Amino acid sequence: MVENNKYWALILGGSSGLGLASAKKLAQDGFNICIVHRNSRAEMNEISAEFEKIKSSNISFLNLNLDALNVESKSKIISELKDKLENTKIKVLVHSIAKGNLKSMVSEDNSVLSSDDFLITFQAMAVSLYDWTQLLFENKLFAEDSRIIAFTSEGSTKPWKNYAAVSAAKAGLEAISRSIALEFAPFGIKCNCIQAGVTDTRSLQMIPGSEDLIKNSIERNPNKRLTMSEDVANVVSLLCKNEAKWMTGNVIPVDGGEHLQ
Amino acid sequence: MVENNKYWALILGGSSGLGLASAKKLAQDGFNICIVHRNSRAEMNEISAEFEKIKSSNISFLNLNLDALNVESKSKIISELKDKLENTKIKVLVHSIAKGNLKSMVSEDNSVLSSDDFLITFQAMAVSLYDWTQLLFENKLFAEDSRIIAFTSEGSTKPWKNYAAVSAAKAGLEAISRSIALEFAPFGIKCNCIQAGVTDTRSLQMIPGSEDLIKNSIERNPNKRLTMSEDVANVVSLLCKNEAKWMTGNVIPVDGGEHLQ
Amino acid sequence: MVENNKYWALILGGSSGLGLASAKKLAQDGFNICIVHRNSRAEMNEISAEFEKIKSSNISFLNLNLDALNVESKSKIISELKDKLENTKIKVLVHSIAKGNLKSMVSEDNSVLSSDDFLITFQAMAVSLYDWTQLLFENKLFAEDSRIIAFTSEGSTKPWKNYAAVSAAKAGLEAISRSIALEFAPFGIKCNCIQAGVTDTRSLQMIPGSEDLIKNSIERNPNKRLTMSEDVANVVSLLCKNEAKWMTGNVIPVDGGEHLQ
Amino acid sequence: MVENNKYWALILGGSSGLGLASAKKLAQDGFNICIVHRNSRAEMNEISAEFEKIKSSNISFLNLNLDALNVESKSKIISELKDKLENTKIKVLVHSIAKGNLKSMVSEDNSVLSSDDFLITFQAMAVSLYDWTQLLFENKLFAEDSRIIAFTSEGSTKPWKNYAAVSAAKAGLEAISRSIALEFAPFGIKCNCIQAGVTDTRSLQMIPGSEDLIKNSIERNPNKRLTMSEDVANVVSLLCKNEAKWMTGNVIPVDGGEHLQ
Repeated sequence: MVENNKYWALILGGSSGLGLASAKKLAQDGFNICIVHRNSRAEMNEISAEFEKIKSSNISFLNLNLDALNVESKSKIISELKDKLENTKIKVLVHSIAKGNLKSMVSEDNSVLSSDDFLITFQAMAVSLYDWTQLLFENKLFAEDSRIIAFTSEGSTKPWKNYAAVSAAKAGLEAISRSIALEFAPFGIKCNCIQAGVTDTRSLQMIPGSEDLIKNSIERNPNKRLTMSEDVANVVSLLCKNEAKWMTGNVIPVDGGEHLQ
Repeated sequence: MVENNKYWALILGGSSGLGLASAKKLAQDGFNICIVHRNSRAEMNEISAEFEKIKSSNISFLNLNLDALNVESKSKIISELKDKLENTKIKVLVHSIAKGNLKSMVSEDNSVLSSDDFLITFQAMAVSLYDWTQLLFENKLFAEDSRIIAFTSEGSTKPWKNYAAVSAAKAGLEAISRSIALEFAPFGIKCNCIQAGVTDTRSLQMIPGSEDLIKNSIERNPNKRLTMSEDVANVVSLLCKNEAKWMTGNVIPVDGGEHLQ
Repeated sequence: MVENNKYWALILGGSSGLGLASAKKLAQDGFNICIVHRNSRAEMNEISAEFEKIKSSNISFLNLNLDALNVESKSKIISELKDKLENTKIKVLVHSIAKGNLKSMVSEDNSVLSSDDFLITFQAMAVSLYDWTQLLFENKLFAEDSRIIAFTSEGSTKPWKNYAAVSAAKAGLEAISRSIALEFAPFGIKCNCIQAGVTDTRSLQMIPGSEDLIKNSIERNPNKRLTMSEDVANVVSLLCKNEAKWMTGNVIPVDGGEHLQ
Repeated sequence: MVENNKYWALILGGSSGLGLASAKKLAQDGFNICIVHRNSRAEMNEISAEFEKIKSSNISFLNLNLDALNVESKSKIISELKDKLENTKIKVLVHSIAKGNLKSMVSEDNSVLSSDDFLITFQAMAVSLYDWTQLLFENKLFAEDSRIIAFTSEGSTKPWKNYAAVSAAKAGLEAISRSIALEFAPFGIKCNCIQAGVTDTRSLQMIPGSEDLIKNSIERNPNKRLTMSEDVANVVSLLCKNEAKWMTGNVIPVDGGEHLQ
């Protein structure tokens, strides 16, 4: 994949889950990788080992432990990118920022969703896709034919208890990705969402009561297993191929058919 | 429609367009009407005449010229409602708050959409539906079988230039209405969105370049005219009937078939 | 509802389930009722009692025990209708023809779906909607403002084991109803599908293994019960009101929110 | 792509348009190619030249000028395939059978759609996908991990004048592909539909009045050109990669964003 070596993939939220798996796969495809992530020193031990694997693909690598949602950090990230990229460009932007508030709308015992919960989740999971697209665009960092990929879930059209803020944010994210596909088309930018099935990640396991969701998802999946981060990363890779250049504005399920039932 | 006279319909944004038409129709159906609106003294002349028409239906009427999005105003509105309602309840909440920022994502000449444009639009057009539902719920103002109706448009799934912030907000609004339908079902609350066609209102006429949109919409509509506010108010009325009580969580086009093409 | 008494509702498949419930409700709304059904003498005892209830609404009533899918029977039905209607017209056509083949695509033990199973089901459940629309149209039996209503289910977009032929037919039915909405719009015809939830009917109870489906549907329904035929008939009634005349080409869930999860 | 050389791709309707382009691309990917087509001797001159290009990819090639919808021909095709494949398997089935009746539902001058038009179109464009899946399955010709790809269009959800029969068939095709995805999942079969944009093919140019459709499609496409067969073939290729194995039961637009507006 020598032809990719002048291009970069920027992964927002790339130190775990779908983002990390995408980074690994795109490195194997020959892309230089920049990961923006937010982790404590304690977490970095394990993550560094993962980053070493990425570097072993013999590509240029940059990780920035900075908040992708903060104005000052964003300037810093852009500045670091400009230094590092020199004359190369960003061909791939992967948005894997998950920061949602899980609360019920009605509860006798616990606090319920506030207006702010909706706004914070919407900003982090949806508007940030536009912010970053705009930031790279204004700074002329996009390649001539570039691909933006964001992650959504069935929750954008199916309400689940406790997920109202995430549901609204994901619905907004899909709408924003369609607007980006439309308005940035003249500049060679393609933008798609991948609707991942219930994915076997650490964050899933940490949700209270996730055992039931996991069991139920396996049962309902025609292929009888959870989605793995690698399944999704595989399709990220496909969407970055030359052959995918006529696909834009789509929401593409990658779930082994889980959404069918 | 004597049976409705112990129930109120609360219309957020009821001094023009879909909100006003809904208020008129629901008054004819026998509901007492409370309209929350935000208008200057100059505008009130014309609006007062409309309010007089509503009162002529021989129902109780209350209009509150207050900002439905402001925390203090909201307290004031709730307090006024409690005074006025006495032992009666709110059976219908109509959300007709339109406050969106129309800007492009890309422009050489004009300012483009900011992160804040998205957030302000989302809060006004989407989150406020939840806020008001929560407010009436906490204050025990909902009737046992109540109906929440919000207005969306094809723009939630179809991007249009300059409409990205509204598109994301409408997509979020639909998601929130589904979550309300799910989580408030145990309390007898039904929540639906009406997807109105391009509607012949003053605000439409004031959009720069709306002539083309109007001409195009008439042509594409199988019934060869624009949607009128009364068409939509008619379906608001139907959704408040006893016969509609098994409908919830839906997005219902009311557009003479405009969405078909 | 005196204003309806010069109009007829023609119910195809009106001796049980959604069709019968619709006939009852529309009779209460003042429509004259013609039911086309196919029943044995043994079944007619019970059904006649139901028909008597309809007649008690003091409307004109006609039942024709003839096959709505057979060419000769169709001529006979049209001829009988012309005699009976005199100068009145058909304002409502309700399509409630259910005749599907339930087989798996893959089975070690039983016969699997054949090409013919798909065709027979498609003709009975989908194409017949067009055939009857065309038949009434050619014979100038439709009123100036008329409503066509057909019944679909989530199965049109969600595959279920054993339901592939019905799923394809329902998807086709929805497409046909959209084409009717578009092409017959100039003649005042509105056409909508109601997507009923899992409905508590005798035919449901007769499906092998339906206990699980029933239990599961109750659990998943935010309103914690099955859909009843009357819930659906209620919305048929609403769609025949003057207020619904701007709704066409839609698929409208009537399921207490069951489709949400 | 040496790893593909033990696998075959069977293309139904592979002598022109999307089918032929897919065959060419899959041959470049290293698949052996079998094309089933139906052409006159006069047409074969030009087509043979295309087939020679495919053979130049240095793969095994078989073309069968036989009717893929006829029972006897189908037996003959299966028999020829078995001879040719020996111990190799079919990994890819591409369904590109287009045979639809284009007529209006209402016309003063011309004949309108008949019941048979719907049935013939449904059988050719939709049920044949199931028939061929079943035929290859029963004859144990599918590889362990195989991909079925069918072509649909926006017409499945958007009615167009004269396209009612095709619209119903495409909606049925999508439903059948979902059922195949579900029921054949245990046997390693993945099934997806590609929703191609308005594609620049000879058959498009032959439709009366297609100039307007072409002009309109270019204008509405964010990428300002028609879809080309190669755009679609590119995504067929991606869906046959190992990386796509977790995608099934989807309808995937490949249209440069045309469906967005």
